[in-house]
Amino acid sequence: MIHQSDIEIAQAKTLKHIREIAKKLEVDEDDLEMYGKYKAKLPLSLINDNKVNQNNLVLVTALTPTPAGEGKTTVSIGLTEGLNKIGKQATVVLREPSLGPVFGIKGGAAGGGYSQVVPMEDINLHFTGDFNAVEKANNLLSALIDNNIQSKDNNLNIDPRTILWKRVIDMNDRSLRDITIGLGGTANGIPRQDGFNITPASEVMAILCMSSDLENLKERLGNIFIGFTYDKKPVFASDLKAENAMAILLKDAIKPNLVQTLEENPAIIHGGPFANIAQGTNTIIATKMGLSLSNYVVTEAGFGADLGAEKFLNIKSQFAKLNPKCVVLVATIRALRHHGGAAKVDYNRPNLERVTEGFKNLEKHIENIRKYNIEPVVAINSFISDSKEEVDFVIEKCANLGVEAVLSEGWVKGGEGTKNLAKAVVNVVENKATQYKPLYDWSSPIKDKIEKIAKEIYGASIIEYSKQAQLNLRRIDRLGFNDFAVCMAKTQKSFSDNAALIGRPEGFTVTVREIEIAAGAQFVIPILGKMMRMPGLPSQPASENMTIDNDGVISGLS
Amino acid sequence: MIHQSDIEIAQAKTLKHIREIAKKLEVDEDDLEMYGKYKAKLPLSLINDNKVNQNNLVLVTALTPTPAGEGKTTVSIGLTEGLNKIGKQATVVLREPSLGPVFGIKGGAAGGGYSQVVPMEDINLHFTGDFNAVEKANNLLSALIDNNIQSKDNNLNIDPRTILWKRVIDMNDRSLRDITIGLGGTANGIPRQDGFNITPASEVMAILCMSSDLENLKERLGNIFIGFTYDKKPVFASDLKAENAMAILLKDAIKPNLVQTLEENPAIIHGGPFANIAQGTNTIIATKMGLSLSNYVVTEAGFGADLGAEKFLNIKSQFAKLNPKCVVLVATIRALRHHGGAAKVDYNRPNLERVTEGFKNLEKHIENIRKYNIEPVVAINSFISDSKEEVDFVIEKCANLGVEAVLSEGWVKGGEGTKNLAKAVVNVVENKATQYKPLYDWSSPIKDKIEKIAKEIYGASIIEYSKQAQLNLRRIDRLGFNDFAVCMAKTQKSFSDNAALIGRPEGFTVTVREIEIAAGAQFVIPILGKMMRMPGLPSQPASENMTIDNDGVISGLS
Repeated sequence: MIHQSDIEIAQAKTLKHIREIAKKLEVDEDDLEMYGKYKAKLPLSLINDNKVNQNNLVLVTALTPTPAGEGKTTVSIGLTEGLNKIGKQATVVLREPSLGPVFGIKGGAAGGGYSQVVPMEDINLHFTGDFNAVEKANNLLSALIDNNIQSKDNNLNIDPRTILWKRVIDMNDRSLRDITIGLGGTANGIPRQDGFNITPASEVMAILCMSSDLENLKERLGNIFIGFTYDKKPVFASDLKAENAMAILLKDAIKPNLVQTLEENPAIIHGGPFANIAQGTNTIIATKMGLSLSNYVVTEAGFGADLGAEKFLNIKSQFAKLNPKCVVLVATIRALRHHGGAAKVDYNRPNLERVTEGFKNLEKHIENIRKYNIEPVVAINSFISDSKEEVDFVIEKCANLGVEAVLSEGWVKGGEGTKNLAKAVVNVVENKATQYKPLYDWSSPIKDKIEKIAKEIYGASIIEYSKQAQLNLRRIDRLGFNDFAVCMAKTQKSFSDNAALIGRPEGFTVTVREIEIAAGAQFVIPILGKMMRMPGLPSQPASENMTIDNDGVISGLS
Repeated sequence: MIHQSDIEIAQAKTLKHIREIAKKLEVDEDDLEMYGKYKAKLPLSLINDNKVNQNNLVLVTALTPTPAGEGKTTVSIGLTEGLNKIGKQATVVLREPSLGPVFGIKGGAAGGGYSQVVPMEDINLHFTGDFNAVEKANNLLSALIDNNIQSKDNNLNIDPRTILWKRVIDMNDRSLRDITIGLGGTANGIPRQDGFNITPASEVMAILCMSSDLENLKERLGNIFIGFTYDKKPVFASDLKAENAMAILLKDAIKPNLVQTLEENPAIIHGGPFANIAQGTNTIIATKMGLSLSNYVVTEAGFGADLGAEKFLNIKSQFAKLNPKCVVLVATIRALRHHGGAAKVDYNRPNLERVTEGFKNLEKHIENIRKYNIEPVVAINSFISDSKEEVDFVIEKCANLGVEAVLSEGWVKGGEGTKNLAKAVVNVVENKATQYKPLYDWSSPIKDKIEKIAKEIYGASIIEYSKQAQLNLRRIDRLGFNDFAVCMAKTQKSFSDNAALIGRPEGFTVTVREIEIAAGAQFVIPILGKMMRMPGLPSQPASENMTIDNDGVISGLS
């Protein structure tokens, strides 16, 4: 049991100067761009492709999660501490948290308990300004679009009704979801319907996370598909000559951020795209940076393995030619009870029968990981309400499948609580790793790629396309985007597109409602359900309970 | 003549590590919060009120400017180089530029030619994130307001029609001036009219610049006046328990930023409120920081002396108990021709007659400065189109008034071109400085304060109040805000509220159209004309000509 809040634990820690953390990675102080004493940006010149290929990449993902989440970030950090404890040189590479949820219900995202990255306040607030840079680059493009529609010179004849590009703000602000802009007369632009998404939902964020360097970033930004002219020609950001100015705004944001864990191990935190309509994992640059500097890199991807791991392996790893050598599947006894049919009030009550039934969900994820030629390890993220009987059951069932399942106690004990998990991971990496293979080739037709994911990963029998989706497929074909990756957008609560289908559903139909285009990120986004792109605040926002004193000491941030 | 652009000159300079600049101020490296190698934040603990009183504050302001501006920032930087050249320890303290104009017509604001602060790209882009922090604090309050209106618990009964608080974005984006938000059904909030201002127009920016420390910042943020409940009770940010979370977002933004000039002298750059509806000068904290660390501090305030200097002296200096010892009035021969009636096409053609007539504008500003018990120095910001005859005329006319006028050639020559100006300033500071006195007491009635400024500074004969303004005065009285300062909002193009009245108009009437309240900043804002709070982009935005290469080298930024 821990009696302190996350922020209290984090504040009790005396941080090492970031130059000391850099030393562990053999990075010269002179190569660091410091942001205060405990944060630094790393130059892209430190990326070394030979090292990227030699070193060991471990992906942390999860079974199908409950709304509370199963602790992937906490396990990723904990596992990194554990690896260092057993003598491996390991770095954790994570996404940057969005500011919006900090004031909402969810809170920040810098791990928890004794498995945190610090300084947690800074990481959860503006950090090194990357989200702001993404926001500004996104909104500069918006301003340029509306300015062009208004403009007498250089007018591209953009049809305002076709504009797909939205503004973004890193704030939970439901009132901005659906707005009309350009009111008030001729001086104020052309009235049209618009809306703000939260910044992680920006395609600029997805692009930043797919880019290899500034040149590539610029090219991708220019490729952003905005909409059509009145004579139905596609309009791209490059038509507005926007890509250089957008890249200028991102010149520092492209560099990964170095911080530390509570046990003074290196943490690289960079980029934070949504896990529903985007790839939900840190930048390719950050992952490669980690692998250039560290023998082991532990990273994570959002939601369950059907979403996060699928995208990590088929989009990011395939594109960036990464070779993940082990996948850690985070499971909680609570989530297994849920998948076995336990009601929410019973989540914390031991029930072997529910866990037995719920195990089918985890089993399907294990099968799925093996489809990529990767061996999984199961991390049972320990909770006080777990019974020994339930934990032993999971360990035994996994063993029957040839998978090592290990209790992970990083939240309560830090690296001391994850040494066994670390050993299991090292065993897979050193003795069982092969060359991973993606599930599909980017070059195969869009419908084939969707089918492969839906049938082999989700377990669907039938894929239906709405009229809208069929029109979208024709548009993708016309624009020549058939060889883009597929970034599926569906509920994280089920293997299917129906949140109510827990466990391991079979024989179901999934419906592709529409298919969006992220031409800069180079993927299309089949939408299988309503996607939230702008959260709201709760009745009693978390902001109400936060305080800061005259010395800058914060409380109430989580 | 200079054949290089500002950015080319800036990039040709090999910068000193910021720790070397800090050394000149006797600041330990350990006290710096570095942002890369060339920017750092200074902790508030370095402020020393004894030093603030001992050291010498010099304000740079201008005659009534032409739309191109008369080069206050360039002269401020140049003068600082000159002071250091003649053996004084001097620091320039400036506002941070807004990002919006960088992509518009105006460009950045880091000086020009050989009088620049560097790294100019960073200063003109996100810098250390202060503007973003202001923007987020402002927009968190907006989100909390709309969330409260939507909320079933804790509902304050806010009447959405009375909300005065607007969202902000640091972007020139005319389409956001007038919008409707909250559309799309019950999940998306309550529909209402709203709009975005540019970030420098946020009251949060005005507050940051008036604050003495985090505690005071928090108090001011809580005092922000938002609007009324349905039963006509005033609503403040503190009613939404917003002030702590807002202050948390500003925890780093409250610390001033240290950079360097092209001649490696210290520059402190912090805060950037609009000069029309706000105080248009850097933070009180930054000015005090400069004075705590430096024998001479050169600072500036926006627009002409009727606006910038008036607010600097009556609002900032009075509140913060500063004692400015010299005021530098920047004049250009071009602007004097303009005030003498020259048409725009003739601005660059010598014409002694026009300059003779136009001198009346400068003369009035000289008289005004003396009303504060301060001796002015006139800096003739040198242009290639100036004739010797015109320059000599201005010098002689000033001498007749007992004022030293000096040619300032910082743009072409850096500190070498401003040594004479520096000597003139030192002469005033060392031989003529007395205790400055403000024009009015904050405690006098609002109408008296307005009258004093309009009659004594502008030269108006009659002050009229619209019906709206009279209602606003009653509201201010009812809310108990009579002892606030007065922050006048009028055109910068004339002493009067009519932009067409150049030179030294007399016998005119000014009309107060409405009076806004900035309760956190502690001033009311009499509006004497239409104020622009959200600029637009030009037909061909500056962004189109910017480039960045793969090494991050930028061109086309100005």
